[in-house]
Amino acid sequence: MPTIDGLTLQLLGTGNAAGLPVYGCHCTACEQARADDRLRRRPCSALLSNGEQQVLLDAGLMDLAERFPPGSLSHILLTHYHPDHVQGLFHLRWGKNTRIPVISPDDAEGCADLYKHPGILDFSQRAYPFRSFRLGGVHVTPLPLNHSKLTLGYCLEQGGKVFAYLTDTAGLQTEVQDFLHAAQPDYVVMDCSFPPATATPRGHNDLNTLLALHESIQPKQTVLTHLDHTLDVWLLENPSVLPESVRVGFDGMVLA
Amino acid sequence: MPTIDGLTLQLLGTGNAAGLPVYGCHCTACEQARADDRLRRRPCSALLSNGEQQVLLDAGLMDLAERFPPGSLSHILLTHYHPDHVQGLFHLRWGKNTRIPVISPDDAEGCADLYKHPGILDFSQRAYPFRSFRLGGVHVTPLPLNHSKLTLGYCLEQGGKVFAYLTDTAGLQTEVQDFLHAAQPDYVVMDCSFPPATATPRGHNDLNTLLALHESIQPKQTVLTHLDHTLDVWLLENPSVLPESVRVGFDGMVLA
Ligand SMILES: [Mn+2]
Ligand SMILES: [Mn+2]
Ligand SMILES: [Mn+2]
Ligand SMILES: [Mn+2]
Ligand SMILES: [Zn+2]
Ligand SMILES: [Zn+2]
Repeated sequence: MPTIDGLTLQLLGTGNAAGLPVYGCHCTACEQARADDRLRRRPCSALLSNGEQQVLLDAGLMDLAERFPPGSLSHILLTHYHPDHVQGLFHLRWGKNTRIPVISPDDAEGCADLYKHPGILDFSQRAYPFRSFRLGGVHVTPLPLNHSKLTLGYCLEQGGKVFAYLTDTAGLQTEVQDFLHAAQPDYVVMDCSFPPATATPRGHNDLNTLLALHESIQPKQTVLTHLDHTLDVWLLENPSVLPESVRVGFDGMVLA
Repeated sequence: MPTIDGLTLQLLGTGNAAGLPVYGCHCTACEQARADDRLRRRPCSALLSNGEQQVLLDAGLMDLAERFPPGSLSHILLTHYHPDHVQGLFHLRWGKNTRIPVISPDDAEGCADLYKHPGILDFSQRAYPFRSFRLGGVHVTPLPLNHSKLTLGYCLEQGGKVFAYLTDTAGLQTEVQDFLHAAQPDYVVMDCSFPPATATPRGHNDLNTLLALHESIQPKQTVLTHLDHTLDVWLLENPSVLPESVRVGFDGMVLA
């Protein structure tokens, strides 16, 4: 990736826990992804960079050791402890000669034995709703999300550039919507797991909910992430339905 | 892999939870594995084949969906629910149109939310020490191991061919040694995580313990698996110390 001045966010994974293609599925979206690696959706995660440091947002990718040589990550910032967001840590933790601070919601359980055997990971820093903190030059505000496990989104700001990273969530609390509207984000990267539904599904946004939140927050751009294959099928069958300010995320997408 | 008549066991992974190379480690063994993919050690696991069916022994590999197309595995047989032995299931479970029976020790906890959200995996079949069962033509006897979580090894027999797969364990109970001595295994694949130690380490065999068990069981061949990088370093510094009937396992090794 070329050096870009200022804050950038690269989407490393834009899939849900099943990913794309779904094992054993023969829907159009899954078959297309099987035929073309560029359409694959890996576990939902992103990399925040400001030229000085890299912060990994969620750790569900299974090849973190290959992607990120020791020292290349200043922090890992977790939204929550569901396996699809932390499963890459089960291996990474057993490294040597390095230490990675992991900032996460104050979830007493964590996932499996991560707290019991943290290895090179340091889980001591916890994030709390609306209690801002700094990561180097980046100003971070945790935002409470609506999910089946304690989950935080993050508003990330530096030099007038504002990203909001909001997954996994079903809708957003009014005070989160108000905060984000006031923050005037350049990009809102948001959970949109499912095609338009008559009611918001449990734990995740459908496209109707996402579009309503986009209207409420009014960022320059909203980017869909954490897609289920059913949404990809729906988007293939309903092209050009999204407003210009709403884009479908893909693995590798750089927001700058 | 060419078709081989009779029962075969292929070692898919021969590493411990850290694997080889260890993230951030610059020891001789880790640097050699970094330079030569064939020396890598992936999460400890194996594939049992008899020409009609394939049984996966442990599921710590992170690319199970790519390695095993739907329908290619008749069963998954788990030794225990530590993450390095089940982490590949967090993704695989979200498949469609297929079902994989997972046979495992009767561990009330499992790992993370695997029992809560089994997806395509069926965890209903449990294995108990010395209660034999059949998987197609294969006769399976679960053997109790000594580990920090409820763990079973398996004696696998068909057509006079006998494999014992014994990881993770620190030593073996006398009745397990007696059972295996009587079974006259062709191959004992056994946990050997650490270099020779004055006492058996917690949870895993060192080389002294493994050699003593090899003497006691007297299989045709004992194969080391679940190696820590410290054992690989020791083996590089102490070549040719193993008896001919004891071999160091490697990823991809086929035992037939
Ligand atoms: Mn998720
Ligand atoms: Mn989740
Ligand atoms: Mn293990
Ligand atoms: Mn274990
Ligand atoms: Zn599909
Ligand atoms: Zn090493």
